[in-house]
Amino acid sequence: MIGKIDFSDQYFMQMAFKEAQYAYQKDEIPVGAVIVAGKQVIAKAHNLTETLNDVTAHAEMLAITAATQTLGGKYLNDCTLYVTLEPCPMCAGALAWSQISRIVYAATDEKRGCMRHSPSLLHPRTEVCQGPLQTEATQLIKDFFARKR
Amino acid sequence: MIGKIDFSDQYFMQMAFKEAQYAYQKDEIPVGAVIVAGKQVIAKAHNLTETLNDVTAHAEMLAITAATQTLGGKYLNDCTLYVTLEPCPMCAGALAWSQISRIVYAATDEKRGCMRHSPSLLHPRTEVCQGPLQTEATQLIKDFFARKR
Repeated sequence: MIGKIDFSDQYFMQMAFKEAQYAYQKDEIPVGAVIVAGKQVIAKAHNLTETLNDVTAHAEMLAITAATQTLGGKYLNDCTLYVTLEPCPMCAGALAWSQISRIVYAATDEKRGCMRHSPSLLHPRTEVCQGPLQTEATQLIKDFFARKR
Repeated sequence: MIGKIDFSDQYFMQMAFKEAQYAYQKDEIPVGAVIVAGKQVIAKAHNLTETLNDVTAHAEMLAITAATQTLGGKYLNDCTLYVTLEPCPMCAGALAWSQISRIVYAATDEKRGCMRHSPSLLHPRTEVCQGPLQTEATQLIKDFFARKR
């Protein structure tokens, strides 16, 4: 019997984590993102700042652009972003403009994360949760920087 | 005798203002941006969020991407951004990542501007000035929203 796919936060974060691993393989800071509408994945992306030579090419930014292209509209109401690292202010600002409903992130970014800014960089109606795979996502980033040294 | 071109802030902001006027003509919120390295323009852009269906397509973001493509590197040290409106947090975050040297903006954005956030969203080494054409840039945005009503 084929088991039902578990459409849970764990499942989608696992998908985002796989994106982060792709980034790692490309020698990019390993961050991955997935955007889900209802139970459907509408965008997957990973950090490509080195590959594209572009500081704006964070996983979340690429995912937002891809998701709005899929939907044919600028707004991501009723969507959830899964991202393996707490978004930076740039990505938080973009997520605010998109009016995304929910953000689930794994690793905390003590230095560059958006959650320590005031006033909040996110849309007032956006729900934020720190979700599954925090340990794995944190470790992947640590491994990346250890390899760099 | 052919007069020397005035490579001043006024001159480059006028160029950014022309970009804002292009946006206005396309029914986009009229914001324009120019990035200058030394005395050379390396990127010009205007807001295209409606045309591209993409909340990330602010003038500054498009200009940053274009400038780094021109330079072949991710960083904008020794560059100045001229923009007709105070950058939002998304654009400020991107400008921080780019390590741009100087930002000159015209109109103030009381609601969405980056200057009222703490800690600062900009890079500590970035110089920020409110420059010329403040009245004209403010009026262009007011005219745009008046036309919308």
